[in-house]
Amino acid sequence: MVVVMKPRTSVEIIEKLSKKLESLGCSVHKTQGHDYCILGLVGDTSRIDPSQIEANDYVDRLLRVQHPFKLAGRTFHPENTVIDVLGHKIGDGNLTVMAGPCAVESEEQLLTIAHAVKEQGAHILRGGAFKPRTSPYSFQGLEEEGLKLLKKAREITGMPVVTEVICLETFDIVEAYADIVQIGARNMQNFALLKKAGKSKTPVLLKRGMSATMEEWLMAAEYIMSEGNPNVILCERGIRTFEKYTRNTLDLSAVPMVKELSHLPIIVDPSHATGKWSMVEPLSKAAVAVGVDGLIIEVHHQPELAVSDGAQSLKPEKFAHLMDSVKKIAQINSI
Amino acid sequence: MVVVMKPRTSVEIIEKLSKKLESLGCSVHKTQGHDYCILGLVGDTSRIDPSQIEANDYVDRLLRVQHPFKLAGRTFHPENTVIDVLGHKIGDGNLTVMAGPCAVESEEQLLTIAHAVKEQGAHILRGGAFKPRTSPYSFQGLEEEGLKLLKKAREITGMPVVTEVICLETFDIVEAYADIVQIGARNMQNFALLKKAGKSKTPVLLKRGMSATMEEWLMAAEYIMSEGNPNVILCERGIRTFEKYTRNTLDLSAVPMVKELSHLPIIVDPSHATGKWSMVEPLSKAAVAVGVDGLIIEVHHQPELAVSDGAQSLKPEKFAHLMDSVKKIAQINSI
Amino acid sequence: MVVVMKPRTSVEIIEKLSKKLESLGCSVHKTQGHDYCILGLVGDTSRIDPSQIEANDYVDRLLRVQHPFKLAGRTFHPENTVIDVLGHKIGDGNLTVMAGPCAVESEEQLLTIAHAVKEQGAHILRGGAFKPRTSPYSFQGLEEEGLKLLKKAREITGMPVVTEVICLETFDIVEAYADIVQIGARNMQNFALLKKAGKSKTPVLLKRGMSATMEEWLMAAEYIMSEGNPNVILCERGIRTFEKYTRNTLDLSAVPMVKELSHLPIIVDPSHATGKWSMVEPLSKAAVAVGVDGLIIEVHHQPELAVSDGAQSLKPEKFAHLMDSVKKIAQINSI
Amino acid sequence: MVVVMKPRTSVEIIEKLSKKLESLGCSVHKTQGHDYCILGLVGDTSRIDPSQIEANDYVDRLLRVQHPFKLAGRTFHPENTVIDVLGHKIGDGNLTVMAGPCAVESEEQLLTIAHAVKEQGAHILRGGAFKPRTSPYSFQGLEEEGLKLLKKAREITGMPVVTEVICLETFDIVEAYADIVQIGARNMQNFALLKKAGKSKTPVLLKRGMSATMEEWLMAAEYIMSEGNPNVILCERGIRTFEKYTRNTLDLSAVPMVKELSHLPIIVDPSHATGKWSMVEPLSKAAVAVGVDGLIIEVHHQPELAVSDGAQSLKPEKFAHLMDSVKKIAQINSI
Repeated sequence: MVVVMKPRTSVEIIEKLSKKLESLGCSVHKTQGHDYCILGLVGDTSRIDPSQIEANDYVDRLLRVQHPFKLAGRTFHPENTVIDVLGHKIGDGNLTVMAGPCAVESEEQLLTIAHAVKEQGAHILRGGAFKPRTSPYSFQGLEEEGLKLLKKAREITGMPVVTEVICLETFDIVEAYADIVQIGARNMQNFALLKKAGKSKTPVLLKRGMSATMEEWLMAAEYIMSEGNPNVILCERGIRTFEKYTRNTLDLSAVPMVKELSHLPIIVDPSHATGKWSMVEPLSKAAVAVGVDGLIIEVHHQPELAVSDGAQSLKPEKFAHLMDSVKKIAQINSI
Repeated sequence: MVVVMKPRTSVEIIEKLSKKLESLGCSVHKTQGHDYCILGLVGDTSRIDPSQIEANDYVDRLLRVQHPFKLAGRTFHPENTVIDVLGHKIGDGNLTVMAGPCAVESEEQLLTIAHAVKEQGAHILRGGAFKPRTSPYSFQGLEEEGLKLLKKAREITGMPVVTEVICLETFDIVEAYADIVQIGARNMQNFALLKKAGKSKTPVLLKRGMSATMEEWLMAAEYIMSEGNPNVILCERGIRTFEKYTRNTLDLSAVPMVKELSHLPIIVDPSHATGKWSMVEPLSKAAVAVGVDGLIIEVHHQPELAVSDGAQSLKPEKFAHLMDSVKKIAQINSI
Repeated sequence: MVVVMKPRTSVEIIEKLSKKLESLGCSVHKTQGHDYCILGLVGDTSRIDPSQIEANDYVDRLLRVQHPFKLAGRTFHPENTVIDVLGHKIGDGNLTVMAGPCAVESEEQLLTIAHAVKEQGAHILRGGAFKPRTSPYSFQGLEEEGLKLLKKAREITGMPVVTEVICLETFDIVEAYADIVQIGARNMQNFALLKKAGKSKTPVLLKRGMSATMEEWLMAAEYIMSEGNPNVILCERGIRTFEKYTRNTLDLSAVPMVKELSHLPIIVDPSHATGKWSMVEPLSKAAVAVGVDGLIIEVHHQPELAVSDGAQSLKPEKFAHLMDSVKKIAQINSI
Repeated sequence: MVVVMKPRTSVEIIEKLSKKLESLGCSVHKTQGHDYCILGLVGDTSRIDPSQIEANDYVDRLLRVQHPFKLAGRTFHPENTVIDVLGHKIGDGNLTVMAGPCAVESEEQLLTIAHAVKEQGAHILRGGAFKPRTSPYSFQGLEEEGLKLLKKAREITGMPVVTEVICLETFDIVEAYADIVQIGARNMQNFALLKKAGKSKTPVLLKRGMSATMEEWLMAAEYIMSEGNPNVILCERGIRTFEKYTRNTLDLSAVPMVKELSHLPIIVDPSHATGKWSMVEPLSKAAVAVGVDGLIIEVHHQPELAVSDGAQSLKPEKFAHLMDSVKKIAQINSI
């Protein structure tokens, strides 16, 4: 940590602050410039609250040197994490494809789509039973009935299931049915839910919040991991920007960023990022080329009848084309 | 609702879509231009899911005409809502000041600050007992112990209390102690929590999400109201932008926007918006001038020792100066 | 300047870099932590290019301590700058109101509006002769004919004139007619134009770019000042964010920020910031309350016939109401 | 164009507005709902200024149906544009690689890099002679001397040259040396410069502004094309968002968006988008996978000595690796 003092701060004040910082457990190295004095802190800075230091009138700025994420960070865990989901490995460059409808609507709908995506090589079945919707008047999901249908689809197809959990109260029931529990963008900083997920061992798919920085996202993973669950899969799903032609702006730079900073697997959701089915295949190809560990894709056999997010769902034949394209790029990457 | 068809869509397809839309309960008026055909929908469009319509290949765009918020909107509720909190009226131009520490730390700390802000004319005491923190390693609040201290401060000072609720599980206990429950920016789209708050009658302070549009924010209010709780107070607390000199960017345009679209009271939080105590007074003055119904301000007698957000807390003497300034502006506004 | 080395960088490399930095004219203070080594640079760092240092594999990050703006900054110029425009003083808390039509359309239009705003107490007449328009098919302004009309309006009303310059080629002619030349948001980093304006002595109204940080904006002022023109007036006119209910998001925090960092006067343009006439008065009041040095307001007697930006123009009677409101707030501020 | 009237607008006012709109040359179709009345305009709406219509008190909103770009849009020009640069074809899926230093520094530097990138298969040499720099104190380029060196490099290597033009005054001299003139992000709405470029026939590389929407970008191209120059190459170089880990956020969705809306070639600049050399290769691969027509890459043999943007420059051996990777992905795309 580096503390920059305001110009013309007196020597006494600098001494007093240094003593206080040392009393909190670190040593202080002073660099005196012409206008500015800089204090470099070494050792255990964990007991120092940056906001307390900045509350002092004579402190200009405080610059943090170390990343605040310990468990999610690569510094103390250099090798890539691989997560096992019913025998399927996620992470370390292995391309995992999760696919299925936005929302579970009926047994027929779910099984039709599950068979279709399995046939094209998808590894994991997605489907929402509890749906977070912007409007209280929109369809909110089949709830436990939807979870039962997902279980049935897993029994029939053998595909593990990922589904979203939207609150503490239903966490246990969702976890009872799911092989991966998803925490959505809107809940990325629902810290109570993160802690709850951390007490489980079920893998967690943690979507990036709509306006979450890289650091906030990794700190959300840290919440889960610090409670004891190391099985976190990150998912980039588009960030909010001024550009409204797409629903969100897919930030593919996040993939190499995460690879630099963290050992956790990262997948991409081009369906929610763009909101437009016509853009899902090109951005899936880009995601695989940039080095992602997986994709999560919305597929519906009748998008114009889908109860949620039809506009971004691929028909099975278009999903087949996508799978064909991304496999070729994945092959090159693995050479 | 207006549906714009892609150029060169055949007459048959337009007829087919029109029939489908009519079967969902509305009438369709067709405007045929040279390149585009536009369908204007009239009547009850509530059964039409925009995303299903956009999922059709031949649909270019869909433009919504009516606002989706019914209860929170001004159209069917033109007069301003006024909320009564233990006899204090919030809304309709009456300036309410909420003030207190970011986090409740101890009885002495809380009472010292409570007395100080009361003396300067604050109406409601703020203080966090459950703290949503970006890092799992930061102080998470005194929890129920903090709530008990808030109750004590209310008994001694007579000030009603506003405090944050961060999860479903602790909603009932927070509500038992609070006169206003706050739902923070990170939980603005925690729909399960919104529904829970909607089943209560306790007034809810609903902060705007960091990247929430006006419409999403009002739809979050709609979640609470549609469950039966009409007592929602909106709070603008800064949005996330590219500018990092302040912690967030305070969007004061939100005040006249909310006044145009909604009948709910709106207050402003300049402390969290800026993250810098030196900017709290000028922006409080601006908020009052723009026509806000209230302010929520962080005050701490020893900000350099505060366990949370010291950098943005005002000392009591600075708070006194702020109160003096904003009262003068409020007087002008009320003439 | 502080250089943070990557963890586990060898002592030799650190020595080598330190020597190089010293050879560029500064002294280097090393702070060695457990994982990180930090180099604090003291003295003249002006010959160090941050990007060259960051290009080294073993450098993690580089943190700048001093602000890069020297002439625009407050550090070496603590007292507020006051700019004289034909005897009218701009800056240091004196409220200047600039008002007039978006575009000069005709003699009758301009004089009607000029008389109306003068009568209400406006100090300076605005009006565009060269208009930067998003579409090449929109009205581009009356050009020199418009400048002549502005000159005439000045002769008749006695009001100094501010008008926009959009390119190098027409700078001299605009300057010949204008008392203040405006450089618009889209040209804020048109460095050739900034240098040209710097070679003049005519005051420059420098609008903030749509996505310009505080630092970039002050560096644009620095371009003008470093060429010899100290007469720069900053103008906040809304930044681009995800929120589209208003045309831009007015960043009123910019006012206290600029006051902290710079000695230059700053005014606010609520007309372009919001794009909606109904929001101009409340945000003007807020701007004055936050401590701005002036306002620039679009006024048109027939906004529904205006050739440019009618939707954000105030009718003269609404402008009169605005003037009345802001004067009262200005009075309080000056007590 | 669709005009939405405010609720409860009288029949007389609606009639009056309809007549006015018809007098401007279009026909008006009225759709009367319960609360809202919608006017659908058909025919030639080019004489209608949206802002004038919105200036009316009784108009709620105005929705544009047609895109405002005619020449840059795909509607009236469905086939892809291919631009010939000294025999090299840019566009229609042909992968063009432009590479070279950020700034031309010396003959030796430029030739060393030019030979290196040519050897790896780059088609066009980039190098800045006039540099737009945020600070007036930074190196501003070798100017005409730099252009002469570029010419020499072209004579020796046979590679066409792309270089930036930053102002009207130097346009002619830059054009005299360049095979492609680049208009940078900061000048994307320097309309005078766009018009000047439109009067030339030299191909223009038009970078997207830092916060330019898709529509504003295509309207900037429209400026050039409407003056008579059809040879516009678009370049996505990252947009400004809240995320600061990378310099900008590369918006790869822009590629399929542009392909949908326009016939112009589009290339990607991953060097400026990320500001970090380690991210250039992965994002180049992603850009090629998403279907871009080309890349522009900064290469420097000694980035730690580069006078500009060293942190984002690739060394020749890393550029060789990049070329190898992107060629493989390009091959798959072309199958």
